[in-house]
Amino acid sequence: MQDIEDYLVKERDRQLQELKQLLSIPSISALSEHRGDVRRAAEWIRDSLSRAGFHHAAIMDTPGHPVVYADWLHRPNAPTVLVYGHYDVQPVDPIELWESPPFEPTVRDNHLYARGASDDKGPTFLHIKALEALLAVRGTLPVNVKFCIEGEEEVGSKHLDAFLDEHRDIFAADMVLISDTTMIRPDLPAIVYGLRGLAAGEVELRTASSDLHSGLYGGAVPNAVHALVELLSTFHDPDGRVTVDGFYDDVLEPSAEERAGYATLGHDDEAYRKSLGLTALHGEPGYSTLERVWVRPTLEINGISGGFQGEGTKTVIPSVATAKITCRLVPNQKSDHVLERIAEHVKKHQPKGAVAIFHKGHGGKPYLAPYDHPAIQLAAEAYAYAYPNKAVFTRMGGSIPVVETFSQLLKVPVVLMGFGLNEDRFHAPNERFSLDNFDRGLRTLCYYYSQLGDTWSSR
Amino acid sequence: MQDIEDYLVKERDRQLQELKQLLSIPSISALSEHRGDVRRAAEWIRDSLSRAGFHHAAIMDTPGHPVVYADWLHRPNAPTVLVYGHYDVQPVDPIELWESPPFEPTVRDNHLYARGASDDKGPTFLHIKALEALLAVRGTLPVNVKFCIEGEEEVGSKHLDAFLDEHRDIFAADMVLISDTTMIRPDLPAIVYGLRGLAAGEVELRTASSDLHSGLYGGAVPNAVHALVELLSTFHDPDGRVTVDGFYDDVLEPSAEERAGYATLGHDDEAYRKSLGLTALHGEPGYSTLERVWVRPTLEINGISGGFQGEGTKTVIPSVATAKITCRLVPNQKSDHVLERIAEHVKKHQPKGAVAIFHKGHGGKPYLAPYDHPAIQLAAEAYAYAYPNKAVFTRMGGSIPVVETFSQLLKVPVVLMGFGLNEDRFHAPNERFSLDNFDRGLRTLCYYYSQLGDTWSSR
Repeated sequence: MQDIEDYLVKERDRQLQELKQLLSIPSISALSEHRGDVRRAAEWIRDSLSRAGFHHAAIMDTPGHPVVYADWLHRPNAPTVLVYGHYDVQPVDPIELWESPPFEPTVRDNHLYARGASDDKGPTFLHIKALEALLAVRGTLPVNVKFCIEGEEEVGSKHLDAFLDEHRDIFAADMVLISDTTMIRPDLPAIVYGLRGLAAGEVELRTASSDLHSGLYGGAVPNAVHALVELLSTFHDPDGRVTVDGFYDDVLEPSAEERAGYATLGHDDEAYRKSLGLTALHGEPGYSTLERVWVRPTLEINGISGGFQGEGTKTVIPSVATAKITCRLVPNQKSDHVLERIAEHVKKHQPKGAVAIFHKGHGGKPYLAPYDHPAIQLAAEAYAYAYPNKAVFTRMGGSIPVVETFSQLLKVPVVLMGFGLNEDRFHAPNERFSLDNFDRGLRTLCYYYSQLGDTWSSR
Repeated sequence: MQDIEDYLVKERDRQLQELKQLLSIPSISALSEHRGDVRRAAEWIRDSLSRAGFHHAAIMDTPGHPVVYADWLHRPNAPTVLVYGHYDVQPVDPIELWESPPFEPTVRDNHLYARGASDDKGPTFLHIKALEALLAVRGTLPVNVKFCIEGEEEVGSKHLDAFLDEHRDIFAADMVLISDTTMIRPDLPAIVYGLRGLAAGEVELRTASSDLHSGLYGGAVPNAVHALVELLSTFHDPDGRVTVDGFYDDVLEPSAEERAGYATLGHDDEAYRKSLGLTALHGEPGYSTLERVWVRPTLEINGISGGFQGEGTKTVIPSVATAKITCRLVPNQKSDHVLERIAEHVKKHQPKGAVAIFHKGHGGKPYLAPYDHPAIQLAAEAYAYAYPNKAVFTRMGGSIPVVETFSQLLKVPVVLMGFGLNEDRFHAPNERFSLDNFDRGLRTLCYYYSQLGDTWSSR
């Protein structure tokens, strides 16, 4: 890798200047007045890919902001990596909290400050520059590469699913590589290999045909809020375990190896509790906080509503009450199955004098990468080339919709190599990207891409 | 009573014409454009009292609509009756449902149709005309009488408490007589001798210092809605009995005689259930529907709120949730005591990881007339003079604020002699007053007033 190291040292100033150019484009996808800027960022990415040595670099239109495509496909027997990233950024409000203007990239304390520095222009840029380095120094790549850099991630990637479905031949690949997550600590990189899925629904309780006067009827008739409380109180045991029959049917327990890995991360429950302003944490016995959030499913009431909610008092017996519910699912739960179990539970626990209806909503699959796959194991090792430690394997309690999209559409592993840090202020004022991670990230990716062909063919 | 009977027959047309005059004044207290009409009705009442033979007939101003006063105080050793009524009426919307215009009193099918016919111009008018008859025929009254006819009952009598408190010497009396309630059936009059009181408050549950993302935190932290459900589920047992320690401390059980009386009313639970659109009634075991509403206290959640309540789904863990609560109290419960017991309950059942606060609200005393008082017993018998049955003694599950006001201010019995019927459409289009009740009501009141002096002195 000495050839690459030499190149990176020589080219560093130019690369940093280029990243500053990209960061100076206010490509805020949420604000229509920045529509032109968003397109300008797409053009910048396209040109940058072209100059790096990629072919077919193009702006592909969607009903919203465009997707940038490019490829290098000259290794017929090697795997194809699809690199996903996004060039759009969050709005900058509250602007007065920025120490330097959000679109005037500024280096302070070995950090590059700008909106999009870490989310996600910086990390996306590293992939382009790593591959540019390999092409420049070695004239070829050990694997095939395609790029899919979108401009609507910060507004929910709303057109991406249909776009990828329409162009699935173009984006076909053997794995997907994304750098849009965070590391555990500056010295401890992380690869996210599991995400929770979702199952949504709403419980509706009805009693009388209209709200009733609590003086004239109170004591003799059911109350929809009482009935809803009675029903909802059957969903969890006092410890927080979900008591819906069959809810845990398909839950994959984490391996001893995975749990041991999480335990090494040294999660500080007390600091976590304090930071959230809680008097106590609350969750399933037998699991650590990280396990509760990463590998255990939940049934959460997101909202409840019924009767009078204005100022003061209204002496009404509510006739309708509702609760919105989402479950976070873990492998191998299926949202259809979970929603069906909840519907049965609601039916079975329908309070006397009330009619209980469960309206099933949308679902999203949990994701679990085959983390013994050599392409994923190599990713963890690649970090060790540039960082003091190899990456740990972590999960995330939330969902990344684009991971689900790629996973379902292409049926290939999605590898999430993060270079951001929690302190990098994604979505907040003074967003930044550590120049350490700029340098180490580039080296990590150069190492990764350079080894991937051999690693893949050796499996 | 033949002298009175003869007079009433002779004067009936004139009396009915006069009532039509009063009913043709659109004295809608809620609408400012009718302010002049409201005053006109007050003037009409004042003049009518004057012509009937009362003294000191006057319009007494309040910060809102005025109160009409008049008296006849020429029996120094006899009791003084304070007659309360109201000359204001409800708005008439939806006007298109009226078969004849609301302020053009029309007789159809032996009913007088007009806004205010039964609530409360008609019944108030009966008192004036009954006393006018006694004065005209016999030249004197057996008791002293004062009138307090207000113009803000339909907007909550908001200035009455302060007004009566300011003028408590003027309105001092030995009993209060009100005709603003209903009978059980056309042939079965009723005297309401008990009302429930009120105790209001709000439960507030707080967990984290802000709402949290259900993906990133779900499973490891408390949820304010779950905590509220857990807390609220401790307020009742499955049968609906309140499980707050000390809640029933001061509850006066109805006597065997009272319960036997209620049982004779033949309440039809099945028709009641159907009319409310319920799959089942729900209430405390061991009590009939009427008893549940009349003599048993309640703790009712009037509204519940927490988390996301918009369209669709939001994957949030709510950090705040609230429930509004009112209790209906029965003699001899005190709202302070009940609210204190609830506050203790909330503290005792505070869910783990949550902070539960109970905000005490306002209270209102339950009312129970001394129904063995001769003035009340006489009222029941007076009906038997004009109706096929003497009146039954009933309670009401709601509150009548003015009863509480008089009861607390004057510390004397309040007698509620109803002449309306549930079918008379109080507050609704095509409000009416049965001419049967016009005639029988007049005779009932003539009998009552004529006997009251002797009955009172014989006790």
